[in-house]
Amino acid sequence: MPRYRMTLAYDGSSFHGWQIQPHDVSVQGVLESALTKLLRQDVGVVGAGRTDAGVHAKVMVAHFDTAQPIDDTRALANRLNAMVGNSIAVASIDGCDPEFHARFDAVKRTYRYFVHTVKSPFSNQYSWKAPASLDFEAMNNAAAMLLGTQDFTSFSKLHTDCKTNICTVYHAGWHKIDDNGNWYFEISADRFLRNMVRAVVGTLVDVGRGKNDIVGVHRIIAERNRCSAGTSMPAHPLFLWNVEY
Amino acid sequence: MPRYRMTLAYDGSSFHGWQIQPHDVSVQGVLESALTKLLRQDVGVVGAGRTDAGVHAKVMVAHFDTAQPIDDTRALANRLNAMVGNSIAVASIDGCDPEFHARFDAVKRTYRYFVHTVKSPFSNQYSWKAPASLDFEAMNNAAAMLLGTQDFTSFSKLHTDCKTNICTVYHAGWHKIDDNGNWYFEISADRFLRNMVRAVVGTLVDVGRGKNDIVGVHRIIAERNRCSAGTSMPAHPLFLWNVEY
Repeated sequence: MPRYRMTLAYDGSSFHGWQIQPHDVSVQGVLESALTKLLRQDVGVVGAGRTDAGVHAKVMVAHFDTAQPIDDTRALANRLNAMVGNSIAVASIDGCDPEFHARFDAVKRTYRYFVHTVKSPFSNQYSWKAPASLDFEAMNNAAAMLLGTQDFTSFSKLHTDCKTNICTVYHAGWHKIDDNGNWYFEISADRFLRNMVRAVVGTLVDVGRGKNDIVGVHRIIAERNRCSAGTSMPAHPLFLWNVEY
Repeated sequence: MPRYRMTLAYDGSSFHGWQIQPHDVSVQGVLESALTKLLRQDVGVVGAGRTDAGVHAKVMVAHFDTAQPIDDTRALANRLNAMVGNSIAVASIDGCDPEFHARFDAVKRTYRYFVHTVKSPFSNQYSWKAPASLDFEAMNNAAAMLLGTQDFTSFSKLHTDCKTNICTVYHAGWHKIDDNGNWYFEISADRFLRNMVRAVVGTLVDVGRGKNDIVGVHRIIAERNRCSAGTSMPAHPLFLWNVEY
């Protein structure tokens, strides 16, 4: 069967996450029903990852199969965009190797979590209002503890069906956007556990507030116990930023 | 009486414009009632300009008088921010010359109008979805017709109480933000008539769509007739960007 690779972006506020749900609106569900109508066949869409409810994707990669080759993939992307509403934007659809798998072939995922320390009427939708006194240097030092191949059970949602909680983190750091108090935390890894980024950010924010330190973060990781880590942060400032193959 | 100069930003979506209204929520109204409570005296706030309903301000400058000098203007700004909601952010309050006038002393106002030609789930709130084929070069050539001291009656709302419709435009041009189809139109002038920027952008968009040209824009200005110009554009992509003194 011909396989297609699709790149898209979405605003997660309108969805109960990526994964199809029996009673809630999901990104995967909207895409599958639109493609099923357009192509007049049952289409299943496989994404690179499952973002949680409220989490956005600047770049999500997915694949799907069709019974017949698609004549004009640009036209299909346009028709799909006209059907899926303003919160999803399909950037491209291209024919790919039938062996390509959007989830299993992805070698690196990158997330960004946006915060602002100065009140701004334009930052509320996609950024978390942090205390002005947040210590970014301390958070950056503690973020270095996350690097490398480790068991991230402490930052995982309880009762998930993952076989292993071991991830390799390639990058974790806070980056200044401008001099108006806008920052983002970027983390890249081979894979992420459910809720992991928001638990990691919550733990680092505790450090930035002086409630924990680099030794405490090291201890949290070593304990492999979700109760050790900081509170999970809100979803609206979190973006799946890129997927690499 | 001591006079204070205030710099603020606001998201115009929640307001029926800057100017105080008897029955609707306005930025000026929210500021005046919060300051009146905080300072326990009637406070009138004078802004650099009156933005229309739905128009945002990245920078708005205003002044107000108090009976007694304010001890701690930073503390007052913080308390004001806590009272005015998320859609207004007061950046600073500083003592100023009692002769300073936020409206009459402003020598240059700058507005930006944001457009995007590629569908994006994150651009809908503060940008207008333009056709992909919009000709920015043609619009930039036509924008040059706006420069200098001219009568802008063609771009003014009918039946306003302005004594003159003559404005001096210092800059008018389209600027590319990135390679993903994001642009903004920036216009700077000594003063603006009501609805002027949105009528100017509508007229230029007609050019970008091939429905008018540079000669047509020149004719529209010369005719001094509001019916000649293009349709007024929506308010949500428009920002008062700066005020200079």
